[in-house]
Formats: sequence, C-alpha cells, structure tokens
Amino acid sequence: MTSQGSTQDQYVVGVDFGTLSGRAVVVRVADGAELGSATHAYPHGALERSLPDGTELAPDWALQVPEDYREVLRTAVPAAVAAAGIDAADVIGIGTDFTACTMVPTLADGTPLCELPEHAGRPHAYVKLWKHHAAQPQADRINRLAADREEAWLPRYGGLISSEWELAKGLELYEDDRATYDAMERFVEASDWIVWQLTGRYVRNACAAGYKGQLQNGSYPSVDFLEALAPGFGGFVADKLDQPIGQLGDRAGTLTAEAAAWTGLPEGIAVAVGNVDAHVTAPAAQAVGPGQMVAIMGTSTCHIMSSDILREVPGMCGVVDGGVVAGSWGYEAGQSGVGDIFGWFTETSVPAAYAERAAAAGQGLHELLTELAARQEVGEHGLVALDWHSGNRSVLVDHELSGIVVGQTLATRPEDVYRALLEATAFGTRVIVETFRDSGVPVEEFIVAGGLAKNPLLMQVYADVTRLPLSVIGSEQGPALGSAIHAAVAAGAYADVSTAAKSMGKVVRDAYLPDDARAQVYDQLFEEYLQLHDHFGRRDRAMRRLKAIRRAAVERRRTASAPAVTS
Amino acid sequence: MTSQGSTQDQYVVGVDFGTLSGRAVVVRVADGAELGSATHAYPHGALERSLPDGTELAPDWALQVPEDYREVLRTAVPAAVAAAGIDAADVIGIGTDFTACTMVPTLADGTPLCELPEHAGRPHAYVKLWKHHAAQPQADRINRLAADREEAWLPRYGGLISSEWELAKGLELYEDDRATYDAMERFVEASDWIVWQLTGRYVRNACAAGYKGQLQNGSYPSVDFLEALAPGFGGFVADKLDQPIGQLGDRAGTLTAEAAAWTGLPEGIAVAVGNVDAHVTAPAAQAVGPGQMVAIMGTSTCHIMSSDILREVPGMCGVVDGGVVAGSWGYEAGQSGVGDIFGWFTETSVPAAYAERAAAAGQGLHELLTELAARQEVGEHGLVALDWHSGNRSVLVDHELSGIVVGQTLATRPEDVYRALLEATAFGTRVIVETFRDSGVPVEEFIVAGGLAKNPLLMQVYADVTRLPLSVIGSEQGPALGSAIHAAVAAGAYADVSTAAKSMGKVVRDAYLPDDARAQVYDQLFEEYLQLHDHFGRRDRAMRRLKAIRRAAVERRRTASAPAVTS
Repeated sequence: MTSQGSTQDQYVVGVDFGTLSGRAVVVRVADGAELGSATHAYPHGALERSLPDGTELAPDWALQVPEDYREVLRTAVPAAVAAAGIDAADVIGIGTDFTACTMVPTLADGTPLCELPEHAGRPHAYVKLWKHHAAQPQADRINRLAADREEAWLPRYGGLISSEWELAKGLELYEDDRATYDAMERFVEASDWIVWQLTGRYVRNACAAGYKGQLQNGSYPSVDFLEALAPGFGGFVADKLDQPIGQLGDRAGTLTAEAAAWTGLPEGIAVAVGNVDAHVTAPAAQAVGPGQMVAIMGTSTCHIMSSDILREVPGMCGVVDGGVVAGSWGYEAGQSGVGDIFGWFTETSVPAAYAERAAAAGQGLHELLTELAARQEVGEHGLVALDWHSGNRSVLVDHELSGIVVGQTLATRPEDVYRALLEATAFGTRVIVETFRDSGVPVEEFIVAGGLAKNPLLMQVYADVTRLPLSVIGSEQGPALGSAIHAAVAAGAYADVSTAAKSMGKVVRDAYLPDDARAQVYDQLFEEYLQLHDHFGRRDRAMRRLKAIRRAAVERRRTASAPAVTS
Repeated sequence: MTSQGSTQDQYVVGVDFGTLSGRAVVVRVADGAELGSATHAYPHGALERSLPDGTELAPDWALQVPEDYREVLRTAVPAAVAAAGIDAADVIGIGTDFTACTMVPTLADGTPLCELPEHAGRPHAYVKLWKHHAAQPQADRINRLAADREEAWLPRYGGLISSEWELAKGLELYEDDRATYDAMERFVEASDWIVWQLTGRYVRNACAAGYKGQLQNGSYPSVDFLEALAPGFGGFVADKLDQPIGQLGDRAGTLTAEAAAWTGLPEGIAVAVGNVDAHVTAPAAQAVGPGQMVAIMGTSTCHIMSSDILREVPGMCGVVDGGVVAGSWGYEAGQSGVGDIFGWFTETSVPAAYAERAAAAGQGLHELLTELAARQEVGEHGLVALDWHSGNRSVLVDHELSGIVVGQTLATRPEDVYRALLEATAFGTRVIVETFRDSGVPVEEFIVAGGLAKNPLLMQVYADVTRLPLSVIGSEQGPALGSAIHAAVAAGAYADVSTAAKSMGKVVRDAYLPDDARAQVYDQLFEEYLQLHDHFGRRDRAMRRLKAIRRAAVERRRTASAPAVTS
C-alpha cells in the first residue's frame, strides 16, 4: 500500500487540532525531520457569544463547528505535503491529536447533530469545546455524589472531576436540552470523531476514555451512579459513550477513499488511534520516562508524566493505564489559564505609550513587556498574583475561581503586573510539582513544549521557581510531531511509541538551570502565593460569591425594566 | 486700612496651596460670589525621585521646594485680582489653606533650611510633603509606645497616628539626619509658614496643631514620651514645635509691605490664621453642623465633620476642639488614595484602542471609561477591589497596605476594573461612615467637594453605597472659597465662621439620592469588600511582607553584583 524503499524515503503526517486552528506536519520516519507544515484556522473559530445563525449563547459557553475540522483535512494536509516537497505516495501513515474534552454529539453513523437542519439552531447540538464551562453545577453534583458514595474511580482523578469532562457535559446536555440528548446516538470525543472521518470506523482512544470518560480498570461510572445523578440518565454510558477501546500507537483503521480524496494521501494507509494534544506531545519531547514531566505551555498548560507506579495525587486531572504510552501509568495535571492570561493582560491593560514604544522598536507588546520585566530583581515589583483568570484546573479543580493581583501601588507599572502574572503561572506549576512529589511521584526534570517555550524570561522564572532543570522540546510543533510518531508506529515502522520517540522525538536538555539566589527570593514569594492560594482556593468562597453576584446582574440586565445608572 | 463703603464693594482673597499647584480666588464678602481666580503650578512639583540637584531619593519620599509657594503669592494672587476686574484696594483680607501635614524645617526667622547653601543637597532640609511616607517605621514605634503607655492623647486619633504627621516626620528627621535636625530651629506646618511669609509672624493654627501635632487640652506628647522614643528626642516639642496657637477665623496679623509687594494687595489688611485645605472647605459647603460630613474628594479624600459631642472613633484621623470651627469638636477621617487611583489606572492600564476611541469622540479616557462603566448593572463586572494603592488612612491607618483586585477573568475589560475601583473608594467611605455611626457620631448627610464631584456616576455610586443623600458643594474651588470666608471673618466682616458660611458658602442639597435596588446589590458587594478589608487589613500581613520583599530587592539592585535575569 505504500511506496517501496528504506524508511529514509518514508513519511508520516501528523495533524494537530488545536483550539482555533489545525496544523499538519510531514515528518520523515527515519529521524523525525519535519519537512513541511501548514496551518488552517477554523472558519468559525470558537463560538462563545452566538451560533452562526445568531442564536445567543449564555456566559461560559464555548462551541465549535465540526465541518471546520474536515476543512483542515482538505486544506492543511495537502498544503503540508506540498510544502514538504515530497511525493504523497511515500506517506505511510497519518496520526491525529485533538483538544480534549471536546465532544461531538452525533447520530450512530457519526453525523454531527448540528449538521441536521432540525438541530442547527440548538446550541447543544454543536461541538462542546474543552473550555465550555457551563456544566460546573453538574460537575459539583457529580463530585458530591461520587464522594458520598466513595466511588472507586474518584481518587484516580485527584478526588474531583472537571466540568470540562464527558460526564458533566453529558449531564448538562441531558438536563438542559432533553430533545437533543434523546436525538444524540453517540457522544464522541472529537479526537475519535476525526479518526472516524478518516477511517469510517469509530474506535475510542484509551487516553480520552480514561482521562475524560472515567474509564478505569475497564469500567465506567455505574448505571446506579448515573441514575442517582438524574433519573433516566442511567443509560448514558451504555447508550451514548461505550465503544471498543484502541491503545495509543495502534492502528485504528486505514484511510478511506473519501478521506484520501480530501487529503491527497494514498487510500489504505495506516491511521493511528486518536490522541489528545497534550499527551501526544510527550514522545515528541522524548519525555516518556519516569520523573520526566512535560508541560505543554500555550493558552493553557497540560502536565504529562509517565510512571511505573500508581499513586493518588490530589487535584491531578487523572492517572490512566496506557494514557500516555501503552504499558505505563500516565499522569495528567493542568493549569487552565497561562498564555491566555498574558494575552488578556497585553490586550486589555497596557497603555498606548507602550504600544507606541514597541512599534517604534519593531517589537510586539509581549516582547517589550518581557524585556522591561527581565530587568527587575526578583520581588522588586512587590506583587503576587493568582493565575486563575480562567479558573484552576490542578490542584483545586474549580472553574469558579478567578484572578487576583495583590500589592499594587501608584508606582506599579504594566511590566510589573506582567512579570507577576508570569510568576503566578510558575507558582501554579510549583504547586503541581510539589503535590506530585508529596504523593510519591517525584518530578526530576521539567520539559517544556508549546509556544511559550520561546520566552526565555518565562523559562528562567520556571526553572528558578521550581528549582528543576528545565529542558525544551526541539520542535515548534510538538503535538503534530507526536501524532506523526504515532502514525509511524501504527504503520509498523517502529515497534512501539517509546522506540519511535528515541528516533523521532527532539529535546534540548537542561536549557535553563535554576539560580539559587533567585530561587531563595522566589521561595518567599511562593509562600505568599500559597497563602493566597489556600485562602481563596480552599477557605474563603469570595470568588464563587462574586460569580454568583455577576450572574444575577447579567440576569437582571436580560430581564431589566429598571435602567442602569447612566452618566 | 481698607476702602470705604458697604460689603458689596468689599472683597477677600482665598489662596489654596494644593499638592501640585496654588490657586487664588477673589470673593465678594457680601455673598461669596467668586469673581476671578488663577492657578500657578509649582515649578518643582512634588520631588519623588530626586532633589533639584539630582540627589536621588529613596522610595516613599515626597518633598517640595518652599520658593514655589512664594511664587504662587507673586503670580496667582495678582492674576486672580486682575481676572476679577476689581480694584485691589477694595480687598480687606487674605486667607490661606494648605495641604497637611506638610512640614518646613526652618531657622528661627522662618528661613527654610533648604534655602541655605550648606543644606541644599540634603533631602531632609526640604519640605516634607503630606504624602512623604518614609516615616512608617517611626510611626509604628510611636503607636506601639503610646499604646503601651496608654497615652491619653492616643484615643483622640482613633488609636493610631499616621506616618504623615509631625511626630513621625520629626523622629525620622532626628534619626536619619541628625545634623539637619540640629540645624533646624523650627519644624513648621506649611499652613503656618505661608502666613509667616505674609505677616512676618509665626502663629500656629489650632487645626494643624491639633490634628497633625497631637495638641490636646493644651498639651503635646510629653518629654518623657519623646525621650522614651529616642534618647535626646525629648526636646522636640519645646525646641522645634511649640508656638502660640491661633484659632481658625482669627487674625494672625496684617500684610507686610514685602508681601503686599508680592501680591499687589494693600499693606496692612487682615491675614487669617492658617488652615488646612480639607477643614477650610466645610464652611465653603455650608457644612459645619452636626451630622454633616463633608468629603473633599480629589487625589485623596478628607472627611470633615463638626459635632457638639466628643467620642473616640477607631481609626479616625483625629478629633480636635476648634479643629474645624471654633467652639465645636471637629472630626477628621480620610482615604489616602482616591482620584490618584483612578488616574494611575487610566495612565497605566488602559489600552491604545480605548485611547483612540476616546480621542475620536473628543473625550478624555476618564470620560470614556465612566460612560462605559455607567452602562453596567451593579455587580455585573464580578469584581471587588481594595482602594489601598496609596495605603489606608481611615480606619486602618496603615500605609504599608496596597491595592488588590479580585475576580478578574479573561472577559474582564478596562471599564470593569475602572468601575470596581470607583466602587472600592465608595466602600472605603462606607467603612468610615459606619465606624462614625457605631461610635455614636452619626452621619446624616454626605456633602462632596473637590474635583471628583464632577463625575455623576461616581456620585451616584457613593449615594447608593452609603444610602445617604448626597449634596454637592456649589463651588469648584471649595478650599479657596473657605479661605476667603476665613479672611472675611479675620477682617471683621462677619462675627464668626458659621455666620460667614451662611452668606458666603454654597451647596446643592440632595443632588443624588440612593436607589434602593442598587443599594441592595451594593450591600452584597460591600460584604465582600469588608471580608477583604478585614483579611488583608487586620489579620493577614501579606501586604507588609510584600513591601519588605520589595525593599530588599531594591536594596539588592543598589548593591548589586549579580545581574538580573535578562531575556
């Protein structure tokens, strides 16, 4: 089915489906060389205010349009092959990864409900993007009930499951739009839906099923449990979720004629089992050994680590057998806001004078702020911030939390707050690293992938704050490279993912080392961070109350008769 | 000594010495009509980074140059007379008011030390502006010692005295620059120094001596107390401070030939006893009765209220017999940052897109932000802030406190934070109002003077948050009008200040009334404010620790061998 010759002439394609775009990369099987890539932005992006027909969405919603994903296959894949200058006939496999938990409600044949005219105006018929956070009330109930019943799977998720995951999103759908729930025959991870589009087969990947679907030891949460959550919801797993599991690196099937026509790739080549963007990056960074924590740092950060030992780490996102590489325990933790916090600050909180100065120097605002912030001594800004502008994933698992900056004075400048926000995310990482360590799963090396690895100040701050040697992935497209590695394994070019990673993965070891003098001052600031963290995250409920006040105000506006104060 | 005729033809001049400029206004004695005014900016402004010769200043310093004050007399006063179109010969008196506690170290004849060549390079020889905050360590020790010794004067200041006041500033001078302290023969309130310049006589005004100098029942803190603070400091009051007291509205003396030449006013006219800018504003707003709290809202806010009863109000700035009008108890409280917080935010935290939008609409940024913020329902931004960017004067009396914003998300916009900061200052006011009420000194009416009275959103927020009817002074130059009223009394045109205020003061009663629906939501937000207030202000020491970390970092930079992280 593929061209003849050595692996020197063989290629694989990795496709990474991100939050706002899809990226394809063509990789040489022999050594992981990235020969060409292309990116296609989703035409509808993330729907956060309204559907394409104008139907308004409530706060905390985030949807997508599945046709946008197919369009990546039709555009970015052939463009990447063209950019690589290879013969498409030499491609022996394709692998994909996706954001998670991003869910597509479909018919039994995989048709998304939102593509049916009778559902096109219903928000619940669309893809629920990972950052759809409207199911928090459901997540709260799930957590309470699971704790009360001492469900065996709960400790595998640090004691709390997220509103982002399948169960919460499914219950929200069940309770908020029963007609759509009833019409839905499958509730499919987008990571599996895209493989379904490529192969014509629905194979559920072990990674998403474990981390996002609470599949542990071969079982999902029980019918009893589901029925206790909401009468009639007991069939959710059996009717909508359950599906044969594929292990990571396995072949899900082969490329259909239709998908071959979309992509320009040969019909019948291997298609890897679906995967999640963060998890697939670990082999791309050669970080699949014990104690190697890889952090995929972009809009948010995911922390991925493999281990031979099983422990219960409070507030981790999950531990899944074969969740990163088949045959070992894969741990996941995360920070729900990182680069998006820096982006939000830069867009909303930096004055015109800085924009002019950056423009005059031919810089972006991030570069200017980084340059100014880098001149400071540790602690000189007098600030400490909490990095919860998008909630807290690990270790508090609470999306009702929000951001805070303490210590502002009339002398505080934008670069001060910017640096405090960078540091806050590093402190958030340290909380995670220490929680793993305290749970018996020590972190020995911190390996960074993702766009933020390009900021040397940020990297040094992370090394200083965590006191860990910091390595950096040697690729700018880690997830896509990881998917390509999985494609090579699925195509039989390597025995397993770990072996493929040794040849195809790339890392710069010890790119940043901690400085003890700075680390000592950061210890003091981290202590302040911890105090705030525990006060607002564990004891005081102010942030939840503020969100409730806000929701009531938005509701008053909707139903308003009395006008707001006007000037 | 003055021209003949009815008060219809008689005028007085009021001069208000503010933080960055001096303003003169010519007022008709009969009815308070303001006929002309002029403002002169201090050429040296506030020295916060270096002396005129380049000598660097430490953080928290704020100095001024006394010649700048004389220049106001030479420029703004004749310009105001010219603007009024009156004959200077018809002016029967001049009154002045000043920021406080702003201290001038002088020789026995009133010559400022910084005007002597041998002292011109010494920071401590300059005027210490009210907002010089470097004496906090001294204030802390004074407060601890006074509490330990149960000094009788301490409860008159709410149990805590401020680092801004005479005792703290004097002790700082004594300990940090002994040579300058020894050379200093008088430590003079600028409010008295300017009268000294006009009359050739040093009369200490009852207001500043009481509020800023701890003069109570005719006595200052004792020699014993001072000596216990620092050996050798026992003579501070007797040697540097003590001076005959003049009551507000009394005549301090008459205009000297030299001062007449500066101002163009007739030699020999009445010069009123000095006064403090906030206190002098109460009669200008006809707010000298019990339960009438006047708030002078600008860079900071001072709250002034007269009463027949003496109570100990925790965290008030002080209660002084004759401190506002002779014959009743004058209460003072304050918020150390208000308009300067809004200004800081607008300058440092609002992006170019807003600046462009405001410019296109011919607005200032404050106007645009106010307009956008005014469209919101109460609570819609989901934020609560603490207004401590410049410390907290009442009721916590702690300049080591700092600002905080809680509840930020990636959806938070500049107008959200702006509104939260406006509201935070209103909550700060409510804490003060409730503390007075709980201490047996109820506030019945809230009267606003100062530049911020022009912002109708801010005014309505204050009415809604405090649930008090809000009146607004009918003059844009309240302190200068108040000084003119005192000049009229000093010149004998009225029997006393209260009588003069009835004819010459101006107020728009009940300009804003509280709305119950909004007030109810503000009650919820105020509860959140109070929780933060008590957590960071009374229990947790995080803000102090952050300032200590900051000071250590600044010190490291000064003595640095190791460079900061660079990008």
